[in-house]
Amino acid sequence: MSYIVDRHNLDFLLFDMFDLEKAHASGPFEGQDRELISQLLDTAQRIAEAEYLPTAATLDAVPPTFENGEAVMPAYVARALNAYSEAGLSAQSFPEEVGGLGMSHTVSMTVNGMFSAANVAIANYFLLTAAAARLLLAFGTEEQKSRYASHMIAGRWMGTMCLSEPQAGSSLSDITTRADPVGEGSYHLRGTKIWISGGGHRMSENIVHLVLARLPDAPAGVKGISLFLVPQKRLDEAGRPGEDNNVTLVGLAHKMGQRGTTNCQLNFGEDGASVGYLIGKPNQGLHAMFHMMNEARIGVGHIATMSGLMGYLYSLEYANERLQGRRIGQKNPGSPQIPLIEHVDIRRMLLAQKAAVEGALALCIYCALLVDEQNGGGESDHADVALLLEVLTPIVKSWPSEHCLEANKWAMQILGGAGYTSDHPVERLYRDNRLNHIYEGTFGIQGIDLLGRKVRLGEGRGLALLIQRIKATIGEAAHIPALSGHAAKLTDALAWVTDATAAALAEPEMERSLANATLYLDATGTVVIGWLWLWQAMVAVRMEEGGATNRAFYEAKRATCDYFFRYQLPHAQIDLGLVNALDVTCLTTTPEQIRAA
Amino acid sequence: MSYIVDRHNLDFLLFDMFDLEKAHASGPFEGQDRELISQLLDTAQRIAEAEYLPTAATLDAVPPTFENGEAVMPAYVARALNAYSEAGLSAQSFPEEVGGLGMSHTVSMTVNGMFSAANVAIANYFLLTAAAARLLLAFGTEEQKSRYASHMIAGRWMGTMCLSEPQAGSSLSDITTRADPVGEGSYHLRGTKIWISGGGHRMSENIVHLVLARLPDAPAGVKGISLFLVPQKRLDEAGRPGEDNNVTLVGLAHKMGQRGTTNCQLNFGEDGASVGYLIGKPNQGLHAMFHMMNEARIGVGHIATMSGLMGYLYSLEYANERLQGRRIGQKNPGSPQIPLIEHVDIRRMLLAQKAAVEGALALCIYCALLVDEQNGGGESDHADVALLLEVLTPIVKSWPSEHCLEANKWAMQILGGAGYTSDHPVERLYRDNRLNHIYEGTFGIQGIDLLGRKVRLGEGRGLALLIQRIKATIGEAAHIPALSGHAAKLTDALAWVTDATAAALAEPEMERSLANATLYLDATGTVVIGWLWLWQAMVAVRMEEGGATNRAFYEAKRATCDYFFRYQLPHAQIDLGLVNALDVTCLTTTPEQIRAA
Repeated sequence: MSYIVDRHNLDFLLFDMFDLEKAHASGPFEGQDRELISQLLDTAQRIAEAEYLPTAATLDAVPPTFENGEAVMPAYVARALNAYSEAGLSAQSFPEEVGGLGMSHTVSMTVNGMFSAANVAIANYFLLTAAAARLLLAFGTEEQKSRYASHMIAGRWMGTMCLSEPQAGSSLSDITTRADPVGEGSYHLRGTKIWISGGGHRMSENIVHLVLARLPDAPAGVKGISLFLVPQKRLDEAGRPGEDNNVTLVGLAHKMGQRGTTNCQLNFGEDGASVGYLIGKPNQGLHAMFHMMNEARIGVGHIATMSGLMGYLYSLEYANERLQGRRIGQKNPGSPQIPLIEHVDIRRMLLAQKAAVEGALALCIYCALLVDEQNGGGESDHADVALLLEVLTPIVKSWPSEHCLEANKWAMQILGGAGYTSDHPVERLYRDNRLNHIYEGTFGIQGIDLLGRKVRLGEGRGLALLIQRIKATIGEAAHIPALSGHAAKLTDALAWVTDATAAALAEPEMERSLANATLYLDATGTVVIGWLWLWQAMVAVRMEEGGATNRAFYEAKRATCDYFFRYQLPHAQIDLGLVNALDVTCLTTTPEQIRAA
Repeated sequence: MSYIVDRHNLDFLLFDMFDLEKAHASGPFEGQDRELISQLLDTAQRIAEAEYLPTAATLDAVPPTFENGEAVMPAYVARALNAYSEAGLSAQSFPEEVGGLGMSHTVSMTVNGMFSAANVAIANYFLLTAAAARLLLAFGTEEQKSRYASHMIAGRWMGTMCLSEPQAGSSLSDITTRADPVGEGSYHLRGTKIWISGGGHRMSENIVHLVLARLPDAPAGVKGISLFLVPQKRLDEAGRPGEDNNVTLVGLAHKMGQRGTTNCQLNFGEDGASVGYLIGKPNQGLHAMFHMMNEARIGVGHIATMSGLMGYLYSLEYANERLQGRRIGQKNPGSPQIPLIEHVDIRRMLLAQKAAVEGALALCIYCALLVDEQNGGGESDHADVALLLEVLTPIVKSWPSEHCLEANKWAMQILGGAGYTSDHPVERLYRDNRLNHIYEGTFGIQGIDLLGRKVRLGEGRGLALLIQRIKATIGEAAHIPALSGHAAKLTDALAWVTDATAAALAEPEMERSLANATLYLDATGTVVIGWLWLWQAMVAVRMEEGGATNRAFYEAKRATCDYFFRYQLPHAQIDLGLVNALDVTCLTTTPEQIRAA
């Protein structure tokens, strides 16, 4: 079995549940049929298993070091990245006119997911590069596209996103990096950036930094932030990387996980000029960043999901093979020990993981499909799709980050003491996964985004569309005897969401309205995942009725739906009840009281 | 402020809530008054802050290495352990007749907790040694006490507990290490032990291993396990460590946390005879181990609590000092940034930590007081105290391991990206704490212990006693207007517990009865912690009414009680409802279904 992908489940989600072939029947992804996608997945799986998975533990144990102003990388990292590019995968999601393969976001995310599962620390380099290239394609000049983005798409150069500064982590309005015009469309950048993933190394001929900075006359706050392209090496006339551009690596952060991805403090313009070029319009830098935010945030949720998946598959195999203990009631100590999976509490931990991971994966794919629809790959109303995606984005970023981390915890627990050692990958996955709740907007910030902004956009149309789609599933499931109870429960759950939303939106004082925004986010996510489980169970019933073989697979889908509805969903009622009641316990407890000791 | 102890809270719990002075007014701990205890705490805090806290990060980053058959330890580890012994602390909890200070378990645990918070990896060495010495005092011969235990109590020698084997982790009945009698009360031990904490080093003149093994004629299973004393070095006539006893270090496990504590695979009798001596009676080894189990399990819960506490105190200070963002609704980007603690979601994460940590600490101290009562330090019915402690033991082991780990997660989250790096201790605490759910009986095993055994002992008298005590608190709190609502809620919660218990006990088929034992454990723990919060709030009200200064401290106690009753306690109803309903989702989902892919 593979640890990095469950191809049967992937086929189930992509083709049986979401009908990807129909979505790809016309439009920009026309012709990307099941066979083509399967071949691509085969190729990617082979590379990920050969070049990524085997080095994950080593890279974690011996991460890049900071020497003489650069990050020294083990040679196998560049080799793995080359294998990815050489297979054409760095170009997979870009349009054909810029040298890409033109694959849908859904397929590309799915392909990349196997690399995230196998070795997220290496995969990050190409994920960040692709995100930066996509931003250049959307907002850059033709020259920027041809001189920079094309090399990134080909996998020859890499890219970073430079947002945070020491005094401005989550609060981007406080960044102070300066960009002074020096004529001919050039700027000199000056400032310090922290938490910059993927910089500082020499694995590629060049690194293209996308940097948020302020023009001299920029207004204060977020309305005065512009986006700049700052190459690690300046290009000569022929577009070849030459002179050093004085982007200095000051140091590497030592992280709990994802340790093979450099995490840099970079100085711009300290040891000489760092020349940069404006991307898009002045003072519109955040707009450009936010344009890419949905995909980036889906990406984080998907990475969290894939860490969860790998932990699940690994602990499942361990539970199948490791003999330990006897069934309750078996008093004969001479009887053979049984596999862990025979113990009910081990099965509970497997079901908990399966519920989180396969639920989260369904959500990630659903959101990726919406991205493709938004990009023209469907016949729907694009404004509606955009609003729906706005509502789902904080959820797909956050729910997997919380619950697939929890899944990793259970994977470790199944292995017991062994799971706490580096002899097995589960403790590393748990460490890797912990980051996902923090970057690309923390859990708390996603909560405020959802309840403070997204459910209010377009007079609540995004949420209304979501509820409409959930109700459609409920309507179908209500006619299936085995699922009608869950359908009724999900109807109740929708009321928890709508009541809580109404209460929060009716409260004029924003601090009170948002006092429980994080709970709202998490619990609404649980209701959404409940929907996707009901949907999966419904498809499973349909497949069983259609005479599908491998009945156990579909039975397990239904059992996991049962698990989710019985063990997980009810907890959302409590959290949404607190939102609904506008509970102000956390708001009215003062800093002075908490500090008192 | 200190990161390793909140002395004000400790005083509140020990003296205002649990009235330790009254408990120590007569009996074996007579004369251990508040002043004496405070002085001991002062001394311990000074040593822990000077010798333990500063090296915690370094020891984690550069843990012991395996070289030439031994674990090479940094010199500061032995220095720290010496400082502890030299202050007399290794002897604190032992009776005066064996050279101890005769302090109560409650005080000793509290003292040791500061070391656990500061540097659990070093503290483990003396905690394990004390546990081993206590076992020798309880079951050893006079000769074993004088030749071995006395040196351990003085802190000159160390000790380990050797239980697990490669084929027998949680399932002790399957151990195969052999002990063959060779005359004169000696045995030759032969076998492999894994996960042995604290062995393999040369920091002390000798290491006393307590080893579970089988006599040649032993019955199969747990009834055929005996306990042996196997020194690292054999003693000469004068009792001095001399000849090597062939206990060989095969390797060290690389752990996610607690990395400074060696985790050894030890071979006995492979390179020559490993001579050992029977402790207690033949085939009674597990009985002896279980005799110490309550204290060991309270100890694990307390270590989990102290990791949680350190994370809480650290993230609280960070939240007070770190400026980031502005209040919701503050649109002026030129206004100064505010401390993190001004954001409501940060306060939620602080309250969540405070609720878990101070609730868990109250439970640990409560259980330690019961140990002291059981050991004769009170006037209660010892059989009743023992039964009550049996019920609380799996809870005090597990609830902190789960919820103070969660607290560590929130501590990291408050620090954001910084919390994910080794620049701050919170990520280490999170890694350290993860172990506590695994060793000394996993979460799942504690669940089976509670629902399968402990609540059935003495016809349920242990649980009845617990409920009786909870009801007494409810009765008092019901008369306090600010708390009467919580008192009513806790009455409901007791019904959730009793109903779930009755349903599980009425089910004759044990696998069904215990299908949700882990949920039962966790949720019953939440109800118990709810009780201890109501009690704390009641004491706070009393202190406020009594005119205590520092009102904010007591207000925060009440606010945290509110938080727990509103945000945490209701979730227990769902889990106990599943127990009550004898939900068999996890039982009826077959291994074949889960495996199907």
